[in-house]
Amino acid sequence: MPYIDVNEGFPGIRALLAFRPETAAPLGELAEVLLRGPSTLSRAEREMIAAHVSFRNDCHFCHSCHAAIAAEHLGGGEADYALVAQVERDPDQAELSEKMKALLAIAGLVQQDGKQVTPAAIDRAKRAGATDVELHDTVLIAAAFCMFNRYVDGLGTWQPDDPAMYRQFGRANAELGYVNRTYTPHPRT
Amino acid sequence: MPYIDVNEGFPGIRALLAFRPETAAPLGELAEVLLRGPSTLSRAEREMIAAHVSFRNDCHFCHSCHAAIAAEHLGGGEADYALVAQVERDPDQAELSEKMKALLAIAGLVQQDGKQVTPAAIDRAKRAGATDVELHDTVLIAAAFCMFNRYVDGLGTWQPDDPAMYRQFGRANAELGYVNRTYTPHPRT
Repeated sequence: MPYIDVNEGFPGIRALLAFRPETAAPLGELAEVLLRGPSTLSRAEREMIAAHVSFRNDCHFCHSCHAAIAAEHLGGGEADYALVAQVERDPDQAELSEKMKALLAIAGLVQQDGKQVTPAAIDRAKRAGATDVELHDTVLIAAAFCMFNRYVDGLGTWQPDDPAMYRQFGRANAELGYVNRTYTPHPRT
Repeated sequence: MPYIDVNEGFPGIRALLAFRPETAAPLGELAEVLLRGPSTLSRAEREMIAAHVSFRNDCHFCHSCHAAIAAEHLGGGEADYALVAQVERDPDQAELSEKMKALLAIAGLVQQDGKQVTPAAIDRAKRAGATDVELHDTVLIAAAFCMFNRYVDGLGTWQPDDPAMYRQFGRANAELGYVNRTYTPHPRT
């Protein structure tokens, strides 16, 4: 039950974006630039960082959405969903490049507190080939999901259980992105 | 010592905004709308929420800046700085309205985790007159500073010690805001 009078047909952050369009605009633009804009990290890799941080923050809506978006960017098969589920829980054991493992480790430290990031964690990523922009974007994606997760949870939004609904969200987002979207209300399940 | 190759003359988030203008644009716009846009909360009240959360996250640069901005919006006297210092540490003991105390309590819960916000904390604020938009903005300001704090700390930015420098930042920001600013590098102290 949301703590404020939002449209109850919209799940998670969609209810909040519809409630306050003035803040929705820069939030959508930030997600678009960070997760889909020009980058040497793929869209799937950036969505995995978002999903891992959201899983660690135990935000059901955000981790389910961004895991599905990452998997859909990879092709949307069962093996893609299985890989992303592993990345959410324990990226060091997943089939990923050493660079992505090192960046996900940094994201996990940022999720706890920015001051948890160590020179050793940065060095590991740089030795694996991470550039300064990749390090910057990893820290900012992780930090931004510490915001989005708190926003969605802190206002008590509706977070559906149905995994099929998140796969549908993932397919649409992978195609259409975060800005200039028109959402329709869902029946509450 | 910053973890990436930023201009060393810029403290805190300024170094990161200069490094990556693509993300600086929506971040600045978000701060401008949330902290200075039309609202039934004063600019000083919104900056106090930002300062309290940043203090709780132990982000020296952010809490020092936003405390100074809040104090400057109040008039910039010593009593204003003393009030904001009390609000950062223990808002329930500060000379504030019951509504602001209740909103700052919600912000403190969001700082821990969005799921820490309780119906009782929301009810306290509503009984004291808080509107839905004020509740929304309080949660989003608190969540946004969980992002900004992690961004500034997670990339190891330079965070000056000199309190006079933060008062200068506070005066300039209270006048000029968060967007379309031109910063000049500072000598490292």
